[in-house]
Amino acid sequence: MAKNLSLDDYWQGIQAGERSVLAQAITLVESTRLEDQDLAAQLLARLAPQPKENTFRLGITGVPGVGKSTFVESFGQLLLKKGHKVAVLAIDPSSPRTRGSLLGDKTRMEYLSREENVFIRPSPAAQALGGIALKTRDTLLLCEAAGYDFILVETVGVGQSEVAVRHVIDYFLLLLLPGAGDELQGMKRGIMEMADGLFLNKAEGDNRPKALAALYEYQAALHLFPKPPSGVSPQITLGSALEGIGLEELYAHLLAYRQQTQANGFWDNNRRFQRLEALHEFIQQSLITRFYVQGAVQTQLKAAEARILSGESEALTEALALLRSVS
Amino acid sequence: MAKNLSLDDYWQGIQAGERSVLAQAITLVESTRLEDQDLAAQLLARLAPQPKENTFRLGITGVPGVGKSTFVESFGQLLLKKGHKVAVLAIDPSSPRTRGSLLGDKTRMEYLSREENVFIRPSPAAQALGGIALKTRDTLLLCEAAGYDFILVETVGVGQSEVAVRHVIDYFLLLLLPGAGDELQGMKRGIMEMADGLFLNKAEGDNRPKALAALYEYQAALHLFPKPPSGVSPQITLGSALEGIGLEELYAHLLAYRQQTQANGFWDNNRRFQRLEALHEFIQQSLITRFYVQGAVQTQLKAAEARILSGESEALTEALALLRSVS
Repeated sequence: MAKNLSLDDYWQGIQAGERSVLAQAITLVESTRLEDQDLAAQLLARLAPQPKENTFRLGITGVPGVGKSTFVESFGQLLLKKGHKVAVLAIDPSSPRTRGSLLGDKTRMEYLSREENVFIRPSPAAQALGGIALKTRDTLLLCEAAGYDFILVETVGVGQSEVAVRHVIDYFLLLLLPGAGDELQGMKRGIMEMADGLFLNKAEGDNRPKALAALYEYQAALHLFPKPPSGVSPQITLGSALEGIGLEELYAHLLAYRQQTQANGFWDNNRRFQRLEALHEFIQQSLITRFYVQGAVQTQLKAAEARILSGESEALTEALALLRSVS
Repeated sequence: MAKNLSLDDYWQGIQAGERSVLAQAITLVESTRLEDQDLAAQLLARLAPQPKENTFRLGITGVPGVGKSTFVESFGQLLLKKGHKVAVLAIDPSSPRTRGSLLGDKTRMEYLSREENVFIRPSPAAQALGGIALKTRDTLLLCEAAGYDFILVETVGVGQSEVAVRHVIDYFLLLLLPGAGDELQGMKRGIMEMADGLFLNKAEGDNRPKALAALYEYQAALHLFPKPPSGVSPQITLGSALEGIGLEELYAHLLAYRQQTQANGFWDNNRRFQRLEALHEFIQQSLITRFYVQGAVQTQLKAAEARILSGESEALTEALALLRSVS
């Protein structure tokens, strides 16, 4: 890191809504160095007594090509017009085989990025998904402390990242294209089950009739799912991010969702439960990190790996021996 | 567990190919009790010096409805005819929201289950996916020790389980249906990247021309991927599990795959690398389990959770405090 800010520097800068300090605080939170983690923990501890209950954490997912960037651009501008300060975060785990980005071209937000009341932060560097969710959560808290009250968390639509992001958001929006074959309904189902609402994108021009048909199809499909724990049935919005169709409707629905779930207690319960999940996630990540940094572990691990590679012994045996000798 | 078998009982029963002992050994391996884990480790340690290099571990995936059960039924019978002993394992993580099975009806294997040379084991109880992969790996080793030389590992097609199963198999087969829309190509891509081969199922009767068209489409798509580390280009088989079409072709391809990758060294390297992954997976799971079982942790955790739920403190702060006070 370039500058060594003190806890007070971070604290004051964030309270004042200074972008550069916010950005550095996020870098601090993303750091794997133990000193940085300690400072990050102190910073987050200071923020804790002032929770921002009236912020909105919106998760956005959908397969590449569904128009997520365009959606974030358009919906982000509507949010600005409504008076919100908007933060855009991304969760983009690498593909397990290629270790490269699944998206050929990284999301660009031409218009939003020029706006005063917008803060955009790309995905943290490749690491375990649990770790990414955790960092995203902390980043979210920092953004809220800096005055951003509408947080868009964008994720790629490949299954794993959705599960991770579900733990840090209030509402999960699934972007879909009308006119899909039905072959992959099953694959979508897992994600549809997690969605609080669907946005049928590109319902514009000639595409409109197909979109309407898809709307009915999805409505029928959603009826087969059990009522979600939020108590609010998933909303399906027909729209076009490109032409700005359906965005006002979606916005009104999101506010209504917050109102209803705050009234029935789900909103707060969900956030509380997420705080518990974060506790366990952090504990588990730390246990693993701390085990591996030990000198004795690193030495013995090399020998154990060599024996496993040569076929001399089994993984489980070596793991038990290693755990026994160190802890 | 019903009976208390000794290490020798397990060892001898498995060597003799006794199904009931194999089943109990798998239950032992799946157990989370520390004594059971110790015994399981000793058992696996005894098996380690006799690796079964000529077994075939075939992962099978595809969305619900693609015909996985029928495929396992038909292909399993072909394998029996070829003289193999066949084990069928399943990886079926619960849906994160409903905690229920993603598949409405659990796979049934009417014919296979009656055969002498077949061993069928359903998915271990719901737990972390990393854990499931680990248990599946151990189960696989036990089955091989009991003489099963063709292991089918079936998984549901929802993204997460594929990534987990990839770590325990030799060859990953993706079942697809012809006639898909192209909306979800992106979502499929992540899984297609992991596949060593595709089987276009239900290419029967009137469906045949559509299947042929899909074959060309997938062939074109696969050309865009980098050459896989195995050195063998993914094979696309046109077939029908129901009518037994394409299964001989697939079988021949699988044997050729093993021959080629054993010749170029990939086969053994892959298995060796998987053993290393299992080492780390087991270490990490154990660190977590062992932390939580401590009495002091359980007491302090309750208090920490209460403070987090009330909003008194942040997850990160409590996690650090807990880790500091215990370790």
